Amino acid sequence: MKILLLHAHPEPKSFTSALKDTAVDFFTKRGDEVIVSDLYQMNFNPVGVQSDFKSRANTEYFSYLKEQMNAHINNLFVDDLKAEMEKLKWADFLLINTPLWWSTFPAILKGWFDRVLALGFAYHPREKLYENGVFRGKKAMLSLTAGASEQAYTEQGANGDIMKVLFHIHHGILYYIGMDVLPPFIAWRAHLEPRETLEKYIENYKQYLSNIEKLKPLF
Amino acid sequence: MKILLLHAHPEPKSFTSALKDTAVDFFTKRGDEVIVSDLYQMNFNPVGVQSDFKSRANTEYFSYLKEQMNAHINNLFVDDLKAEMEKLKWADFLLINTPLWWSTFPAILKGWFDRVLALGFAYHPREKLYENGVFRGKKAMLSLTAGASEQAYTEQGANGDIMKVLFHIHHGILYYIGMDVLPPFIAWRAHLEPRETLEKYIENYKQYLSNIEKLKPLF
Repeated sequence: MKILLLHAHPEPKSFTSALKDTAVDFFTKRGDEVIVSDLYQMNFNPVGVQSDFKSRANTEYFSYLKEQMNAHINNLFVDDLKAEMEKLKWADFLLINTPLWWSTFPAILKGWFDRVLALGFAYHPREKLYENGVFRGKKAMLSLTAGASEQAYTEQGANGDIMKVLFHIHHGILYYIGMDVLPPFIAWRAHLEPRETLEKYIENYKQYLSNIEKLKPLF
Repeated sequence: MKILLLHAHPEPKSFTSALKDTAVDFFTKRGDEVIVSDLYQMNFNPVGVQSDFKSRANTEYFSYLKEQMNAHINNLFVDDLKAEMEKLKWADFLLINTPLWWSTFPAILKGWFDRVLALGFAYHPREKLYENGVFRGKKAMLSLTAGASEQAYTEQGANGDIMKVLFHIHHGILYYIGMDVLPPFIAWRAHLEPRETLEKYIENYKQYLSNIEKLKPLF
């Protein structure tokens, strides 16, 4: 399997980074190929701007979507963006390793999707979406660290059902581009847990990864 | 009323920017005070990093949350962050004017929340949250442009119920910090509509804004 691992944590010694290392180890040992896009380490720019394009279709009015389509047709994406697009095309499995910040991706990770999932390249409205999406046949999965307990993320809990919270990512991003979205792995309130709980999470994560071929997609 | 208007669109001539201008005009004419944080124009950095803090509690291990708390206690936030925090404290009403990109905020706007809603300043887990939130008594509202039709954002539509999509913002961010979250104003597929439909949206938006005192919060 070819795996693109997106990683979004600024501290290499963090537990979120340990989960990333665990996945890299796990897949490498199994003989899979892994490419890591470590967004903080890459100093990834998350803001889609005019300079994403080697030249512009319209320099009077900036429509990011129209420039994306033009760049897709005329091969005008700047090199760092093109590199991320090539990784995504190459991969069978997109593994997204991140803390949940404010119920969604940290900005640096959100911006990867804003810029890399360009119109034309990653979707065509009313043509290539969802079950007809561009990346049909690829799998995607979230590997998350969450700041609150599992109980807090239930329908009765303070934060609401975690699957409702994550719907905008699972359905609105990953399924939208045609991927099979696997159920997420989540380490709850890891920043407050003792070392032994964290070690158990690492073991559970390896177990989870060894089973992903059998997981049923969410949609 | 004191209004902080967050605006996140790179093109000043866009329809999203016209909605921003409409709100500024509307409130100013009524005698309200409006401050606009135009994030693209400000070249706002959305990535929370070490340099958010004038000095660090721990230079060996970077915990963004712990540094936020330390900076809150010891007044160590850099000036551009502090300025945004002061605007938020000042405002009675947070109006968020943005396109919906990938079912959520563009990265530049997500990063405003990552960085400005600092631990200690904007929330204290298990103490100041939701109905006991720091910003109780303030209102918040989304003013959105969406790429698809209203029908597509229903339970039966391709994208699912818009309120489910927006739950992570409404509940996970705005209600979390204690705000009264008003129902959003949404202009559907504005980029595909003719000028007369857009003019009608502008009129509807003024009507909507004239009625916000009577709107019932979502939670």
